[in-house]
Amino acid sequence: MVNFKFSNKRMYNLLLSCFFLIAGAISYVEAAVQYYDWTVAYTYASPDCVEKLVMAVNGEVPGPRIDATEGDTIVVNLTNHLPTEGVVIHWHGMHQVGTPYYDGTASVSQCTINSGETFTYSFIVDRAGTYFWHGHFGMQRTAGLYGSIIVQLPDSQKEPFDYDDEASVLLSDWWHKSIYEQQLGLDSIPFRFVGEPQSLLIEGRGKYNCALDPGSNGASPSCLPCNASNPECAYHVIPVEHGKTYRLRIASITSLSSLNFVLEGHNLTVVTIDGRYIEPVVVENLDIYSGQSYSVLFTADQDQSRNYWAGINVRGRVPNTTTGLAVLQYLPNSTDLQLPPSKPPGSPAWDDFDYSLAQARLYKVKPGYEKPVPQSAGRTLILLNTQNKINGHIKWAINNVSFVFPPTPFLAAFKLKLKNAFSPIAPPDLPPNKPDFNIFALPNPNDPSEINANFGSSPYVFKLGEIVDVIVQNANTLNPNNSEIHPWHLHGHDFWILGYGKGKFDPQNDPQSFNLADPPLRNTVAVFPYGWVAIRFVANNPGVWPFHCHIESHFYMGMGVIFAEGIHKLPSLPTETLGCGLTKPRH
Amino acid sequence: MVNFKFSNKRMYNLLLSCFFLIAGAISYVEAAVQYYDWTVAYTYASPDCVEKLVMAVNGEVPGPRIDATEGDTIVVNLTNHLPTEGVVIHWHGMHQVGTPYYDGTASVSQCTINSGETFTYSFIVDRAGTYFWHGHFGMQRTAGLYGSIIVQLPDSQKEPFDYDDEASVLLSDWWHKSIYEQQLGLDSIPFRFVGEPQSLLIEGRGKYNCALDPGSNGASPSCLPCNASNPECAYHVIPVEHGKTYRLRIASITSLSSLNFVLEGHNLTVVTIDGRYIEPVVVENLDIYSGQSYSVLFTADQDQSRNYWAGINVRGRVPNTTTGLAVLQYLPNSTDLQLPPSKPPGSPAWDDFDYSLAQARLYKVKPGYEKPVPQSAGRTLILLNTQNKINGHIKWAINNVSFVFPPTPFLAAFKLKLKNAFSPIAPPDLPPNKPDFNIFALPNPNDPSEINANFGSSPYVFKLGEIVDVIVQNANTLNPNNSEIHPWHLHGHDFWILGYGKGKFDPQNDPQSFNLADPPLRNTVAVFPYGWVAIRFVANNPGVWPFHCHIESHFYMGMGVIFAEGIHKLPSLPTETLGCGLTKPRH
Repeated sequence: MVNFKFSNKRMYNLLLSCFFLIAGAISYVEAAVQYYDWTVAYTYASPDCVEKLVMAVNGEVPGPRIDATEGDTIVVNLTNHLPTEGVVIHWHGMHQVGTPYYDGTASVSQCTINSGETFTYSFIVDRAGTYFWHGHFGMQRTAGLYGSIIVQLPDSQKEPFDYDDEASVLLSDWWHKSIYEQQLGLDSIPFRFVGEPQSLLIEGRGKYNCALDPGSNGASPSCLPCNASNPECAYHVIPVEHGKTYRLRIASITSLSSLNFVLEGHNLTVVTIDGRYIEPVVVENLDIYSGQSYSVLFTADQDQSRNYWAGINVRGRVPNTTTGLAVLQYLPNSTDLQLPPSKPPGSPAWDDFDYSLAQARLYKVKPGYEKPVPQSAGRTLILLNTQNKINGHIKWAINNVSFVFPPTPFLAAFKLKLKNAFSPIAPPDLPPNKPDFNIFALPNPNDPSEINANFGSSPYVFKLGEIVDVIVQNANTLNPNNSEIHPWHLHGHDFWILGYGKGKFDPQNDPQSFNLADPPLRNTVAVFPYGWVAIRFVANNPGVWPFHCHIESHFYMGMGVIFAEGIHKLPSLPTETLGCGLTKPRH
Repeated sequence: MVNFKFSNKRMYNLLLSCFFLIAGAISYVEAAVQYYDWTVAYTYASPDCVEKLVMAVNGEVPGPRIDATEGDTIVVNLTNHLPTEGVVIHWHGMHQVGTPYYDGTASVSQCTINSGETFTYSFIVDRAGTYFWHGHFGMQRTAGLYGSIIVQLPDSQKEPFDYDDEASVLLSDWWHKSIYEQQLGLDSIPFRFVGEPQSLLIEGRGKYNCALDPGSNGASPSCLPCNASNPECAYHVIPVEHGKTYRLRIASITSLSSLNFVLEGHNLTVVTIDGRYIEPVVVENLDIYSGQSYSVLFTADQDQSRNYWAGINVRGRVPNTTTGLAVLQYLPNSTDLQLPPSKPPGSPAWDDFDYSLAQARLYKVKPGYEKPVPQSAGRTLILLNTQNKINGHIKWAINNVSFVFPPTPFLAAFKLKLKNAFSPIAPPDLPPNKPDFNIFALPNPNDPSEINANFGSSPYVFKLGEIVDVIVQNANTLNPNNSEIHPWHLHGHDFWILGYGKGKFDPQNDPQSFNLADPPLRNTVAVFPYGWVAIRFVANNPGVWPFHCHIESHFYMGMGVIFAEGIHKLPSLPTETLGCGLTKPRH
């Protein structure tokens, strides 16, 4: 059992930590305790050369990177210096076994940290790999509240691939409009979408093309700081030495954009996905969806007299953003950075979904590194994703329920047995729509079952250890001939990807094509337009875990569900996770 | 005792309310219970013809007006639909006798209402007059979170002046920059001040002059919605009939600007200040500072074939904002509003402080309408206001303490006897600076006592019933030859204004000039540049009450103190006021 392995390791680490704390001398230990003091505050930053207000940790955007070794305990004292906003931090990819209250999800694992308060997160980094942390309240992630978590294997263990050195890039998309305005637009009638990003960032660096600013002739107030001489306006640089092989960790924390990553002139050998080993595959360029990470290997075997572009392009949406760029610098080329002589690299056509689907299907678990997938499930959910109007507001709904964030965290509601924290009526396991619902068409305005979504915030409850299959089914949006990519992320778990399909999932026949031999494991999977994906996971982690589209605006608009499992085995909740909604003190 | 009177009335009203609630039939009652359902959310609004995100109650800016009768109980169910911000509402001018926990001040009377929560304010409107409500967390008031409270006498009572009809105008100043950016600028090194407002609003209406927009030629993105054909871009209209006498209620909720109000062609007879009767005085134009209100009488005795401007101009700061305008419309002039043929009305020179001081000194209590001022005080505070740098940040300090908002509300800290909620070291009653501190000069950089301000958040504690004098002393800012106007507002009380003085307060001689005969009462008083004001109040209202500069940015920068009184007689605190800081539940 994966669960069992974690639990053992966690106890071992806790004991180890205690021993060394008591001994009062932490020098080299396999599982260390790392302490961080973080302050969240607004700051000015110009990640794409245009200054704006951002939400930063310790003044940095992206925020501080956590470098850890598998088994370490991470302790983050987080102080909220935002004047009027609460805040939480989610540790994306950490499974929080035994510490579901430190998952850092507003309305789910904890009350938000109020302005002026300090909250201490403490959790075990339970798996080597490439992860990240980010805000998980409203759209605070989009404001710049994110950073990398890089977890190495202990020295005593070795990765199943070789490399000389490593580098990492965190990919993001960037808007000039504030998150307050973005959120308001999404809530408004008429709807005002956030639109395509102004820039794509690699490791927090990009260059906005001021010429694209509507109405700007270079003298526009919003473009005045768009100044390439700004020292903040430097490309991120990945230095390499000729002949060496590198592990490049690539993670995407985008708010909206699906990306394709290209390392000009270099093929990429994909070796891990979301911290899980796969059978290596070589690609010319790499699709990556928000919430995902990869490790790729490449050898610096090109012309060392010049440098090369690393580039990211938007996929799945009509692009309106120039290529995000970084520089692969062959050392010892001049320290005065010499830009590549070539054009920014292109990617496959934005709407070549067959390409993306084929690439997604390449990944298979590396034999011998994971326990086998359970061969059957005890419960199956089919989650139909639709876009709906509720009281005139455009929302996303899952089986006709558009998720709203309740004032009382689910974890507290279960642990403290609070009534009225959420509706006692469970959400539907299957789409309530009529069987012949057409995923390719606009909703039928004459059929209430196709258009009547409602707000809701009740969870799916699983028995401890239950094996659950979830089919996420995509459909047409409220716009004709339009269906979008949705990267779905599950907290507290990795899951097996049993298969992707085009069109409408057929519960009779499609399971026969599930990959039950070598399905890959990961925590975030893309659902392609007009398609479906089938995943399987073991509900073995007592806690309450969101499963949601990782596109910031989509989750904000209701595109998520809540999974609760092992609720009779929930740990006691730290006092500081409470105080909101129905968890206020009684005096 | 004022206190005693309130208490009696409150009990009477409560009993009355209970009776009618039990009877199940509320028709006409002298003291009614009024219920409001309010939702705070972002919305788009264009109060000065330029669209921006605002913080609105029920979608309105200014928010809903409360019309009540003295003695009424106001119940407001406030739901917070801001995505990530907490919120509170302060009821400015309400004394909250017996309900200090509903004063609506973050860090003082309650934990902020979290996103998604509903909080119920319930308090008695204890005095007829012109008041307002507003956000009191960070700079949320500046975002548009305010509205009027108009309190009439019961039908059985009569004002000591006559009029035919009444109207009211709430005055405000308006910025296009978001409060998030304003707050960040104030917190930044180098300091970025909020600057002069883009517009002045009368009853929430103004017209921004797009030509003033830096870098704009009319095609600037930030000016595109600046369109006079926008139906939101209408002047506020005050309709009058020739020959009638009007009571005009004027209240200022400005964030920064001191104002002078002019009713073109009409003198104003001032009859009340902050809900208190004064001996009537006639003025040609009226100075009004943020946090203050007036009732003035005027007779519509001018040329009825035309209309007249009502105008507001900035005082006390170099003006960079055009006159805020409304139209006094003589009925039955055309309903297609005919604009006045005249230029916008001017005001006295912005820096004619002698004019302002002389006008402030005009106001004397109306004999027979207030109990006499106590002839001596039991305790005297001299609060020296200085501008200081702390760790490179520009702050305001009072006796070298720059106020910071603690995570645990003071009221809960006292009632629940929480240790560590604030420093046990009381702030100084007198300026700690050396006696010859020069209020006209820049701080002496060689004298630590003149420059060493510190952050602090400990309260002044008064015995119940203690009579307290407070001298607020103005000084030079960090800029040469600069001292500013500061309107100081006291929660939970009205105070007597014993006198204003120029220069440095002389504790030996200046008290001899105090007006102990007919000083006016009010809740907000202006301290003029390089001057002082002396006030007296009775600490007879168990609770914790901020006393602070009502300029939003100044309080944000630390310009305030906390008064705690009767802490052994504090009422029990409603659970919903708790849950933050040290008031989280224990499980």
